[in-house]
Amino acid sequence: MSIDTLTIVGVGLIGGSIGLAAKANGVARRVLGVGRDPHSLCKARDAGAIDEACLDLAAAAPRGSLIVLCTPVERIAEQVRTLAAHARPGTIITDAGSTKAGIVTALDGTLPPGVAFVGSHPLAGSEKRGPEYATANLFTGRVVVVTPTRHTDPAAVDAVTEFWQALGARVRRMDPFEHDDALALTSHLPHLAASAVAGVVPPHLLDLAATGFRDTTRVAAGDAALWTGIFLSNRGAVLAAAEKLSAWLQTFRTALEAGDAPALTELLDQAKRTRDALGR
Amino acid sequence: MSIDTLTIVGVGLIGGSIGLAAKANGVARRVLGVGRDPHSLCKARDAGAIDEACLDLAAAAPRGSLIVLCTPVERIAEQVRTLAAHARPGTIITDAGSTKAGIVTALDGTLPPGVAFVGSHPLAGSEKRGPEYATANLFTGRVVVVTPTRHTDPAAVDAVTEFWQALGARVRRMDPFEHDDALALTSHLPHLAASAVAGVVPPHLLDLAATGFRDTTRVAAGDAALWTGIFLSNRGAVLAAAEKLSAWLQTFRTALEAGDAPALTELLDQAKRTRDALGR
Repeated sequence: MSIDTLTIVGVGLIGGSIGLAAKANGVARRVLGVGRDPHSLCKARDAGAIDEACLDLAAAAPRGSLIVLCTPVERIAEQVRTLAAHARPGTIITDAGSTKAGIVTALDGTLPPGVAFVGSHPLAGSEKRGPEYATANLFTGRVVVVTPTRHTDPAAVDAVTEFWQALGARVRRMDPFEHDDALALTSHLPHLAASAVAGVVPPHLLDLAATGFRDTTRVAAGDAALWTGIFLSNRGAVLAAAEKLSAWLQTFRTALEAGDAPALTELLDQAKRTRDALGR
Repeated sequence: MSIDTLTIVGVGLIGGSIGLAAKANGVARRVLGVGRDPHSLCKARDAGAIDEACLDLAAAAPRGSLIVLCTPVERIAEQVRTLAAHARPGTIITDAGSTKAGIVTALDGTLPPGVAFVGSHPLAGSEKRGPEYATANLFTGRVVVVTPTRHTDPAAVDAVTEFWQALGARVRRMDPFEHDDALALTSHLPHLAASAVAGVVPPHLLDLAATGFRDTTRVAAGDAALWTGIFLSNRGAVLAAAEKLSAWLQTFRTALEAGDAPALTELLDQAKRTRDALGR
């Protein structure tokens, strides 16, 4: 895969890492970074993640043959519309948003002829923000979910698949709604639980927190506004996942109140078996 | 501090690490390991954590001037009684149990003259089990909470404090009940939340789990029976902590149902501030 100009909208940890990985793997001849914050764009250029910076979405649109949006989920659909209106025919647009059904549904069948959108979600990242934390190997061995619909141009799906694979990722195709239901459990729920634990512990007790607390709450350091957008964009599935969590906690509390050791051990052991299946 | 024979009851990750740290820091001339499982004792000896192994608690009791119990919390008080009945006058006994009020209350003022018990809890460990995971630096820079009562011999408290400090730890003295209330929030609650998340995620979705899920659920791989004992030994405080967690989750769900972005962001941001205060 060889792209003349790769355009990345939003040059934070994910966008910056895409730029570094594209260059490290010889995927793009040139990387154009687009953003609203000149300071971030400068940092991305200093980090070698982009070659050139642009503050205007419409002006950047005709310059890339592949455009990747790494912006908060609630902005992606509108930004894709703006890009598509100014893109050259043959342009392929994808994204890195954590939820897919809302974005894909909003855009499905609405773009000008010759411009294709394919939803993507790289399962990679961290609680850190900003291009200074970007790394060329962020996607190496990681799963990227690609979420075509029956309206999506198959050639564009193949090109986006090939792009992520060239960055070292394993691509898995899924229905966007199926993706959102699954990620509510595997990503949004852990964030919620981590925030809940960090949210109820009084700061003056933090010097009694060991590695268990650190690991369990690490993702709670993620950006609050960004995660508000993710939760709101997957409201139904997140509420269903939170309901499952609350029910599990209620079962646990009932067993603990009753002093029912076998029931507690079985609950904890079932969770352990799932966690053990994942490996370190 | 120099101990002729240090006796460690229970030579798993914690007990093995105490042995290695005591030797690495020249704290004990000789380390005697006591346990019920000859295989574990062999592994501890192979790892260099103990010099000698013994399967009998009463027989081991007179041999050590300092005895540390690293066994499940529900066994500690009874084992201390057995040890104290056979120990030489001047013997100091401490432990590494995760909860303190039950153990300390059960033993307070009950031991034979000349034998002292001082409760300890090193805030170190991992989800791993067994002496093969022991390391000499497990306690370096970590907090060990020591929980004397008004009946505890001050000289024994000083000796136990000096012992943990010699292993590289920072010692903090606390009331045992205050310790258990605090640890319910900083240790037992994270374990509960991690187990709850791992407990509700269907194993077939695990290939959609990224680092957020891994970090948040890591401690759920801990031993189920061991944690059942910890939860049961701190039932009231754990139930109160779980109630706080459920209330936080309910507040979050109400805000999410209402689509109240500012309320969600404030909840997440308050949690983030606590987590940020802890550092990486």
